[in-house]
Amino acid sequence: MSETNRLNQQIEFIMEIDKLKKVYRRSFITGGERLENDAEHSWHLALMSILLSEYALVEEGEDLDLLHVLKMVLIHDLVEIDAGDTYCYDQEAARDKAQREEKAAERLFNLLPPDQAREFRLLWDEFEERRTPEALFAAALDRLQPLLLNYHTGGRSWKEHGVTLEQVLERNSLTEEGAPQLWAYAREMLGRAVEKGYLKKG
Amino acid sequence: MSETNRLNQQIEFIMEIDKLKKVYRRSFITGGERLENDAEHSWHLALMSILLSEYALVEEGEDLDLLHVLKMVLIHDLVEIDAGDTYCYDQEAARDKAQREEKAAERLFNLLPPDQAREFRLLWDEFEERRTPEALFAAALDRLQPLLLNYHTGGRSWKEHGVTLEQVLERNSLTEEGAPQLWAYAREMLGRAVEKGYLKKG
Repeated sequence: MSETNRLNQQIEFIMEIDKLKKVYRRSFITGGERLENDAEHSWHLALMSILLSEYALVEEGEDLDLLHVLKMVLIHDLVEIDAGDTYCYDQEAARDKAQREEKAAERLFNLLPPDQAREFRLLWDEFEERRTPEALFAAALDRLQPLLLNYHTGGRSWKEHGVTLEQVLERNSLTEEGAPQLWAYAREMLGRAVEKGYLKKG
Repeated sequence: MSETNRLNQQIEFIMEIDKLKKVYRRSFITGGERLENDAEHSWHLALMSILLSEYALVEEGEDLDLLHVLKMVLIHDLVEIDAGDTYCYDQEAARDKAQREEKAAERLFNLLPPDQAREFRLLWDEFEERRTPEALFAAALDRLQPLLLNYHTGGRSWKEHGVTLEQVLERNSLTEEGAPQLWAYAREMLGRAVEKGYLKKG
């Protein structure tokens, strides 16, 4: 591949992923004017990764690879350009989620030059498999961020979708694996959400 | 400071910067439905940093510090939460831009625990000063990204604001310092923009 072709492919991908700005989630941004989109959400997770990396659970003597976390959170939702956002409390939609996202990954990442297509695919697989400390930390933040938005918008999305405390606890407990202190923070916040009437018990 | 206080401060900052999702720029997202906001723009720059790092200009034998670039592009627009987006072709607004942004940096970054406030301030200063290869590369992408959006939306924002090729060339020529090959790409694209009637000559 010529250098020009390589750059053209990279720019084509960069323009294709602009579509992530149109994939809307179920969380409202603070102020409540509108729903958040995936691109903003990914940016927010990246900032959280930088600021909260000290809470990531790593083996004694090991360091968290922050660059790796950032790459994962920045690309983790790209597949939703084709597959759409699957609401985490929607059991029906969850059934074919893996299949839809797999197909999306195949198309999207292969717009890139082969070496970068491979890198992105490996990063996405690692994020989905949640086995490394980096992937577990990224997943923890991906759970925590919508809880923060929901709490700070008076539980609006929880209320609209009739979500209960028990569902939230079950869905988000994996935060504990990646960042136990952040899970303790989240649980306390959820307790306050129930007290304030933002979130109902099941 | 207790550990709880530290985490509370970090979360408070994380919620405060949610406001970046409401700072709108002058570029339209592809499809043209609406203007892009700063949070999406920062996410897009981060992806571009990962994909285009091979084009960054570095000294022989040196490597680009990609983590450092990512941190800079992710936080570079935070000051606009208070200072607003200053359109790059608006000479009137440019006059007090530095002062407005300085004041914003002072307020915003100091919401963080002191060590992180210092880190963010240094990153922002480095980005603004454009002296390191990382800052020059970040600045190159920050210029290139709106050109790409403008080209791919038929020059809509250039037309609405009566911007000329000469203005675009002058404003964006610093892309050459950080990433010469990307500047060559941009110049060729701008030539095509003039041919297609997206951008007028002055």
